[in-house]
Amino acid sequence: MTEQQRIHGVLAPVVTPFSQELAPDPQRFLAHCRWLLAQGSGLAVFGTNSEANSLSLDERLALLEFLLESGIDPARMMPGTGSCALTEAVKLTERATSAGCAGVLMLPPFYYKNVSEEGLFRFFSEIVQRVGDSRLRIYLYHIPPVAMVGFSPGLVERLLARYPGVIAGMKDSSGDWTNTRTMLDNFADSGFDVFVGSETLLLANMQHGGAGCISATANVNPAAIDRLFRCWQEADAGEQQQRLDAVRSVVERAALLPSLKAVLARYRNDPAWETVRPPLVELDAAQVQALDQGLDALGFAMPGLNAD
Amino acid sequence: MTEQQRIHGVLAPVVTPFSQELAPDPQRFLAHCRWLLAQGSGLAVFGTNSEANSLSLDERLALLEFLLESGIDPARMMPGTGSCALTEAVKLTERATSAGCAGVLMLPPFYYKNVSEEGLFRFFSEIVQRVGDSRLRIYLYHIPPVAMVGFSPGLVERLLARYPGVIAGMKDSSGDWTNTRTMLDNFADSGFDVFVGSETLLLANMQHGGAGCISATANVNPAAIDRLFRCWQEADAGEQQQRLDAVRSVVERAALLPSLKAVLARYRNDPAWETVRPPLVELDAAQVQALDQGLDALGFAMPGLNAD
Repeated sequence: MTEQQRIHGVLAPVVTPFSQELAPDPQRFLAHCRWLLAQGSGLAVFGTNSEANSLSLDERLALLEFLLESGIDPARMMPGTGSCALTEAVKLTERATSAGCAGVLMLPPFYYKNVSEEGLFRFFSEIVQRVGDSRLRIYLYHIPPVAMVGFSPGLVERLLARYPGVIAGMKDSSGDWTNTRTMLDNFADSGFDVFVGSETLLLANMQHGGAGCISATANVNPAAIDRLFRCWQEADAGEQQQRLDAVRSVVERAALLPSLKAVLARYRNDPAWETVRPPLVELDAAQVQALDQGLDALGFAMPGLNAD
Repeated sequence: MTEQQRIHGVLAPVVTPFSQELAPDPQRFLAHCRWLLAQGSGLAVFGTNSEANSLSLDERLALLEFLLESGIDPARMMPGTGSCALTEAVKLTERATSAGCAGVLMLPPFYYKNVSEEGLFRFFSEIVQRVGDSRLRIYLYHIPPVAMVGFSPGLVERLLARYPGVIAGMKDSSGDWTNTRTMLDNFADSGFDVFVGSETLLLANMQHGGAGCISATANVNPAAIDRLFRCWQEADAGEQQQRLDAVRSVVERAALLPSLKAVLARYRNDPAWETVRPPLVELDAAQVQALDQGLDALGFAMPGLNAD
């Protein structure tokens, strides 16, 4: 597997449905994964907008097993496997890697703040050595607005030098194009695949050698985002980007994750999708109405949703 | 148990020893717990300075079981049981409560930032209802410099009103006396026990109706801190406070947790104590030397350490 094809393109941090009792709902999860794949999106299950850190390790492992047993192609999956606890991160990373997942998307340990570059280097070194699988591909998940702990260019350089090939890329959710540009300019030539964390930067990322995007909005607008990924060199790419941005701006007007769930509830005609785990809360009625009106004004649709 | 005696006084967030392979070391942990109890300190195992969030749920449960099986009195324990994941927090809280622990010290879910008061209220409501044990005593762990998510007076008021008796108090590690004072003034009369997160505020806390302190430094200086707790109304209380502050200022000159481990390694003559889990790193030689010299200058000692 040393020459394995790297995953590129658009991935959704797959939204996790819950029962009324707040238990993960495997069947709705599977249906959503299948729809995303059919729309051209890969599956970054267990991301920030999957409420992954609101799930126990066992809940994450059980959902992963269920997808694998249900025939979801692991080559289209990049599960989030980061954890504050080294041993939990190792366990989930081992399972995803042995199952043949395209890679894993790893948060840094995010409880302690202002940790040293050395400490983060050691954490990822332990992961690589304990997993001990040549198929391991780690994508560093840089999301300082939430995790508060990030990956500096110096840390990336050190990890890449020590674990070339294994350190496969980054999801940059800083929202800071200057940072993304630094990662691209410094590391893209050495095979480091940079995904932006929002499709609002997808065209810019592709124009500068990026690998795609891993974006929450891909849960509801995957085909259009995938089209820009495939056609970014075409004449209408700027227009496509604008249309993506218009949808995004409506969906992120209120809290992003509850908004995505409200959109899924509406277009799947299935109110169960609205449920979130605390500490998140669902949208209120006025927010749902504003969301619906905003999407209607754009002529938004979710094609193929009844094909499940 | 409705009239159970509340735990007051000094508690140590018990430092967790690791083997060279970074596995928790139950025997050294037990020896340290026994020494702390003999010195008058209660056991707030699984706190920030216990590297609790660097441990998996299974590792925390196993250490707790080991202490219980070894005869450690649960009435002297207040385990940290908070987690970003509701189901993990419930599991650990259930176990600690059914074992008869004096209470549990709960971080808020700390991955998502800027979460609503409603979302945090729902999280703790789920905990109380799922645990469903009249013995449950929750101490809210307010440590905004690390968790970034905290407990506002409004949230405390709402939780206290809904779950009187169960919401038993707070560890305030904000380091902000104004906040501690607000908690004391607003809630101490209704039986809400406020512990400060550092012994530097112990005298002030006791003078204003507080319940004690839960402080990292109690891992190395428990008897002296306990003495101030017991004798805060005596004439030399101010001097005692100054001596505690002098020790603390030496121990926190470099990173606090690695410094505590370095002190334990030295006074137990056991270098294994120095090991920390990434992303933390141990002190370097110059830092150890400065620490040793600072403590020697104060005539610092750890009485009874050879009695294990």
